[in-house]
Amino acid sequence: MLALFFDPKPSLKDVPEPVPGKGEALVRVLMAGICGTDLELLAGYRSFRGIPGHEMVGVVEESPDASWVGARVVPEINIACGTCSLCLEGLPKHCERRRVLGIMGRDGAFAEFVTVPLENLHRVPESISDEEAVWTEPLAAALAVQAEGVQPGDRVLVMGDGRLGALIALGLQMHGASVELVGKHAEKQSFLKTLGVKIKTGAPRPIYPWVVEATGSPSGLEMARAWVRPRGTLLLKSTCHEASKLDASAVVVDELRLVGSRCGEFAPALEALQSRRLPVKSLISRIYPLREAEQALTDPASFKVLFDVGGDQA
Amino acid sequence: MLALFFDPKPSLKDVPEPVPGKGEALVRVLMAGICGTDLELLAGYRSFRGIPGHEMVGVVEESPDASWVGARVVPEINIACGTCSLCLEGLPKHCERRRVLGIMGRDGAFAEFVTVPLENLHRVPESISDEEAVWTEPLAAALAVQAEGVQPGDRVLVMGDGRLGALIALGLQMHGASVELVGKHAEKQSFLKTLGVKIKTGAPRPIYPWVVEATGSPSGLEMARAWVRPRGTLLLKSTCHEASKLDASAVVVDELRLVGSRCGEFAPALEALQSRRLPVKSLISRIYPLREAEQALTDPASFKVLFDVGGDQA
Repeated sequence: MLALFFDPKPSLKDVPEPVPGKGEALVRVLMAGICGTDLELLAGYRSFRGIPGHEMVGVVEESPDASWVGARVVPEINIACGTCSLCLEGLPKHCERRRVLGIMGRDGAFAEFVTVPLENLHRVPESISDEEAVWTEPLAAALAVQAEGVQPGDRVLVMGDGRLGALIALGLQMHGASVELVGKHAEKQSFLKTLGVKIKTGAPRPIYPWVVEATGSPSGLEMARAWVRPRGTLLLKSTCHEASKLDASAVVVDELRLVGSRCGEFAPALEALQSRRLPVKSLISRIYPLREAEQALTDPASFKVLFDVGGDQA
Repeated sequence: MLALFFDPKPSLKDVPEPVPGKGEALVRVLMAGICGTDLELLAGYRSFRGIPGHEMVGVVEESPDASWVGARVVPEINIACGTCSLCLEGLPKHCERRRVLGIMGRDGAFAEFVTVPLENLHRVPESISDEEAVWTEPLAAALAVQAEGVQPGDRVLVMGDGRLGALIALGLQMHGASVELVGKHAEKQSFLKTLGVKIKTGAPRPIYPWVVEATGSPSGLEMARAWVRPRGTLLLKSTCHEASKLDASAVVVDELRLVGSRCGEFAPALEALQSRRLPVKSLISRIYPLREAEQALTDPASFKVLFDVGGDQA
């Protein structure tokens, strides 16, 4: 099968089809999305060597449980051992021996086929198109910030005008929060305005009860800290290699709360997609066939770049 | 009256007795405690110029409400404006225009008399001695970490073997938590062992659901981060001038929670003192008369140094 391989330099290869392990399905990939994390893997993050890709929608081709065969699915990306202390405490996403689809110890979705444990699969309702379903994983991560207690009507500042920041802002808006977004890219912001996102400018003032840090930059943390009001919450979504600076004393004096948030639940993401209340398709900048991976990875597109692997447009 | 003045260099001065403002009491100081923050003021923190001291017990000499006269009291230290948006939202401790007794914009307790708004006063039950009552403010700050949800039986690592770390560890132990303490001073740790505190040694491993950072050092934050387990909580108590380094990416991946905690409630602190379940008196290293302020401020004592201003030993 055709696959994009990172070593960490990218190359297209013809590799054998993967063989499902015990309790796993063989999934034919329909579409896959390029995420910031994929570009970090290219830069050497986690010394990843293999097939990347963790945002995808596909069709089950083989399964030990026949009821899955033919189902259109989106897979959760953390593959837990099920036996370590964190798994036993109900935290499989933090499994000490976890592998992560296309990120850590496990081949991902930038290929014609991928294998996934059945327990990671979610069925995609028919009314959700492939171009929408491929958003399930990043949308789940974006909606995860709401689980921290943002209430409808709450003022939230989202920092970062990239894919993740945009998705978080739109998700919070759907949730009824009063959202503003601050970023660095005039062009992206102009586009986000057309989707109803309010853009914030000016020097930081500690006025927001909620600030979401999704800048992708190590300096974002301290900037975010300067926007959050006393006893407010700073939700961290960026993963950068470099350490950040933080005025920890201000965190103490202002009794701030910083909460790291990585993955989210798939069910609310699928519900949101089904409700059509989120303009995810507007955030698709371009769709490439997998064989044009090189162009796709270097596309300077503002928002989401997808691979059509085995979908209608492939 | 005799007062210790910081400019920021310390000097003993004969200054006029303070005159209470509207709604304020004149309080004769009995005992006062030296806190790490006082030593930071000496080093130039907050450019404080005036009479320091915010840990105290005293007797009301004058009050617009006569029922307070003669009462032995401990004062809360944040003096709020009552009209700013944070005050109106019920966060007077974070008042934008707040003054803080002996720390910010307001003379404190290292003097024979101090003025305090009546609303800041708490009566001290008779069974609590001056040497115990003077612990109310630091104990309230130490017990504040429990408000974040530590449950009896929970494993907690307290980082820092100073006054604050010791008080936090003892408070959490009283609360029923399974506490270990990590620090740098063998002598202090030997002493804390005699009070039943379990000492932790060795390289950091991410095993604690709760870590309290009370090292007073900017490097404490990242060390604390390395001890907390996925989805665990890091309670921050240190205030240092320098910025800290933080691996924000690890906070995101492990979905950690960092919570800054400054002041606490006085009622539970007074209850704890009354219960005699905390050996606060064992943590008193030395008591000086106010006129020996210079020696007191440079005392290399392991734990708490007090001033006896107008108490039995003055």
